[in-house]
Amino acid sequence: MSKETLAKSIREIPDFPIPGVLFYDVTTLFKEPAALQELSDILYEMYKDKGITKVAGIESRGFIMGPILATRLGAGFVPIRKPGKLPAETIEESYDKEYGKDTIQMHKDAITEDDVVLLHDDLLATGGTMEAACKLVKQTNPKKTYVNFIIELKDLHGREVFGKDVEVETVLSL
Amino acid sequence: MSKETLAKSIREIPDFPIPGVLFYDVTTLFKEPAALQELSDILYEMYKDKGITKVAGIESRGFIMGPILATRLGAGFVPIRKPGKLPAETIEESYDKEYGKDTIQMHKDAITEDDVVLLHDDLLATGGTMEAACKLVKQTNPKKTYVNFIIELKDLHGREVFGKDVEVETVLSL
Repeated sequence: MSKETLAKSIREIPDFPIPGVLFYDVTTLFKEPAALQELSDILYEMYKDKGITKVAGIESRGFIMGPILATRLGAGFVPIRKPGKLPAETIEESYDKEYGKDTIQMHKDAITEDDVVLLHDDLLATGGTMEAACKLVKQTNPKKTYVNFIIELKDLHGREVFGKDVEVETVLSL
Repeated sequence: MSKETLAKSIREIPDFPIPGVLFYDVTTLFKEPAALQELSDILYEMYKDKGITKVAGIESRGFIMGPILATRLGAGFVPIRKPGKLPAETIEESYDKEYGKDTIQMHKDAITEDDVVLLHDDLLATGGTMEAACKLVKQTNPKKTYVNFIIELKDLHGREVFGKDVEVETVLSL
């Protein structure tokens, strides 16, 4: 399966969640065994030689490929969640959204200085949530942080918010 | 790694989310590569001969092992989500909670009559959410439905809510 075929397995939904937005629905990719396997293989090939010890996924859609990639790489999986969801001691970061602020949390003991971290989410738009997730992970001072998305919306230039110390890779640029 | 060792990797948190409740925090299992791999292997062995074609996970903690199991089994992954999150046409089920009602949704085209479905969530307490998920999946009339949890709280007898046509299996009974 080529990346073009993989891209065709993603359903396009106009005007969701608000009028004027074209939403890329990755659930149609996840439900097809061949497409899910191909995406898993592509992500594994991208990161197999990086020494990743923890894959951190952002709630909720980053929880789908993140854990698959963690097991493929022999790493652990760390959830980054909305406030109040994680039961033990957390660290957090807040960031500006179009209207108001949002906050994400991670368990304080989830990542250590010995870890090489791969941050994963499904889609890179303006990059605000992932930028906050990078800051969150950096509070724990890991050896190195990589950032990955399945889809990048290239016209939004979200990749420019990340510093040069972070390696950003995406599977599909749409 | 034995099931006892796996159980020890789960952190116990008293009084979360409310006083009097002992919360089993599976994030400490997920973050340990050996424990995550062992759990993945155990789940694969449980279901490898069942002809599973779709694994459906319940938002959000069912999204972690659900997708791992889907790729291991060569199946697709289907998210069952809270209202308003899925972008295409959905079907839904509502169910009673301690205070008020809750609703879960699934894409209408996510499962077909040709599918053998494995429903997954992290923890079986009273079973209300999974009972609703079973009804939701049955709206699509699949060949067979299996139900799986990582942890079963045996004193709550949640497994009794499921009909005899549903096979319920859990990894750890606590």
